[in-house]
Amino acid sequence: MKNINIGLFGFGNVGRGLYDVLRRINSDSVHIKRVCVRHIEKQRDVVAEFTDNPDDIFNDKDINLIVEVIDDAEAAYDIVKRALKSRIPVVSGNKKMLGHHILELIDLQEQFNTPLLYDASACGSIPVIRNLEEYYDNDLLCSVKGILNGSSNFILSKIFNEHMSYDAALKLAQDLGFAESDPTLDIDGWDSLYKLIIITIHAFGVYVSPDELFTYGISTMNDSDIRFAREKDRRIKLVAHVEKFDDRLIMCVIPQLISRNKYIYSVEDEFNGVVIKGLFYDKQFMFGRGAGGHPTGSAVLSDITACGYNYRYEYKKRNDSVLPTYTMDHTFRVYFRYKSAEQRNLLHFSKVREQYSSEDYNYIVGDVTIANLKAHQEELRVKDCFVAAYPFD
Amino acid sequence: MKNINIGLFGFGNVGRGLYDVLRRINSDSVHIKRVCVRHIEKQRDVVAEFTDNPDDIFNDKDINLIVEVIDDAEAAYDIVKRALKSRIPVVSGNKKMLGHHILELIDLQEQFNTPLLYDASACGSIPVIRNLEEYYDNDLLCSVKGILNGSSNFILSKIFNEHMSYDAALKLAQDLGFAESDPTLDIDGWDSLYKLIIITIHAFGVYVSPDELFTYGISTMNDSDIRFAREKDRRIKLVAHVEKFDDRLIMCVIPQLISRNKYIYSVEDEFNGVVIKGLFYDKQFMFGRGAGGHPTGSAVLSDITACGYNYRYEYKKRNDSVLPTYTMDHTFRVYFRYKSAEQRNLLHFSKVREQYSSEDYNYIVGDVTIANLKAHQEELRVKDCFVAAYPFD
Repeated sequence: MKNINIGLFGFGNVGRGLYDVLRRINSDSVHIKRVCVRHIEKQRDVVAEFTDNPDDIFNDKDINLIVEVIDDAEAAYDIVKRALKSRIPVVSGNKKMLGHHILELIDLQEQFNTPLLYDASACGSIPVIRNLEEYYDNDLLCSVKGILNGSSNFILSKIFNEHMSYDAALKLAQDLGFAESDPTLDIDGWDSLYKLIIITIHAFGVYVSPDELFTYGISTMNDSDIRFAREKDRRIKLVAHVEKFDDRLIMCVIPQLISRNKYIYSVEDEFNGVVIKGLFYDKQFMFGRGAGGHPTGSAVLSDITACGYNYRYEYKKRNDSVLPTYTMDHTFRVYFRYKSAEQRNLLHFSKVREQYSSEDYNYIVGDVTIANLKAHQEELRVKDCFVAAYPFD
Repeated sequence: MKNINIGLFGFGNVGRGLYDVLRRINSDSVHIKRVCVRHIEKQRDVVAEFTDNPDDIFNDKDINLIVEVIDDAEAAYDIVKRALKSRIPVVSGNKKMLGHHILELIDLQEQFNTPLLYDASACGSIPVIRNLEEYYDNDLLCSVKGILNGSSNFILSKIFNEHMSYDAALKLAQDLGFAESDPTLDIDGWDSLYKLIIITIHAFGVYVSPDELFTYGISTMNDSDIRFAREKDRRIKLVAHVEKFDDRLIMCVIPQLISRNKYIYSVEDEFNGVVIKGLFYDKQFMFGRGAGGHPTGSAVLSDITACGYNYRYEYKKRNDSVLPTYTMDHTFRVYFRYKSAEQRNLLHFSKVREQYSSEDYNYIVGDVTIANLKAHQEELRVKDCFVAAYPFD
């Protein structure tokens, strides 16, 4: 492996995690040469050269790898583009940036013959992208389904297992460093969505942009919903889901009522769990820490090492002669809590299976299309509503 | 990916599984050109060209990949050697052969610049070798521990969960195609051991030969042992284990009393589960079907596809400047059932923690070294004795 001198952008939770990991393994071949931060005046108890000028990294001829672990997606986009155009390999952890710009970044990798790695961006320490890229790269793959956001899962676990309030659980997740600095990214499903988009490129060769997808989170979930789940002996989990049906592909992020016999039922706290399903091998389950500075820092290290061995993603599935077509024309059984008749009429149930009404709230269990859910994504994101997929066992 | 014309050796459970998988995906680029079998006269309801002469494969210029999925380790060794020396890439599923000859086969790969892939040999459909090779290739890795044999785990599950007798469970495993044709390979831990040896080469760069390792299975387990496990709210699982402590490496295959809070407690039936533990990322758990023709056939397909992309193992860890030293000087807490005082005296307990005596049998819970267990491996393999690791929680 060649020597790696890193130019690091960002020294938050993940950047600091990477620093700790590298210091611990005391590698001969991997060093952080310089760190670019926004607030250079901040006191940091580490031995590293800091700058607030990106040029100090890009103009340093010793630096042969850029690692970008900043929060700001637009700034991350500029850094990654500039790195690729300067033919400096780059590792990124910014899923929002990737979710929006990955197609362009694939082109730039090719054009400038320079790799961009981002396994650390999806599922923290679980090597899901590498596995999809290298091992599940044949035609047997049917679906990828999982809990991809550690922070919202942590909150759900605290609510379900420890009867904590939503706000207290969110506060705790933030204090422990699991939450994004903007918590709506976690809670409303966006973080899971960006990861799902990245996963789908590798799993099925298809890119779908964030605004074409149904994304719904847990921010409007309330005690009635939790009670409903408990009565059915299920847990609510925020699930990202991509599945191929012959030549059609469905994708979405939605809370789901998960029964005990499912692998992801037992994925608790800040952990992530991914179920990869294929013909013949059936289901594979991968499970590990999905959030936190040190697990993510060690995932970044795996990307760095891979760069040292000149590894690059090949996006093999994009070369398939026939790619599946993304569709929202797919029916889910859902649980839908609502207040007004107007809200009730947002969704067109092809089949109503259960109904409940009371002075406080009402719910329906029935079958709707993803297209119907997507059409009313914003109207469903209010305190009086909550939707969750309610799969048959 | 280039076109692949396979010369297939063996058409048992896995060979047939591969045939089914390929027929199902109807690949343009992967074909079975010819199949070499021992009993050519056997009726088979498949469309393929059969031969019983290996030369028909080695001399066929169209064949650019050998896939070897036969039972006989010595014959497999000859095929793989001949393939490498003929510079034909080769995929093997024979863990016994690999466990004995892997060092020589690594040399041959290098000498003839030809790859040998064998992910399918360890853990069926779980890509454990590929992950160790590509993702856990840095210094953070501490241990790999898992249930690597689907057949013995299937038997243990039937005994523990369905109160089936040992013999009935073994028969069922054989009928379902999970067991090796020689069941002692599964039951006495040899199959797990070979897989552990292969895993360890990739995980820590160290090769230890089968006869240097303590290997102990479940064939002498009886109702008293099952009762003991149940009383402690544990399950008996056959566990392969490699762990690094600074510059020392321990390795062994031993039944373990596993408590509920462990990931592998829930690995049931023919499934395999592997826990990879590292600094910073803590534990990763991978879970999937570890036996059966179709799951293993699909794992062989992943190796075949990887060959199509010119993938090869790099055995990076073998190049580390300092490799850990294998040692048996490590103490385990064990449960030991025995009958005679002579058997009792085989093991030297540095600490005795529990003792039980009766007319029928006796047991001790106490601390012994692996070296002590290894010294009496054969004497412990009798009906009157059973040893299982009994880890602290």
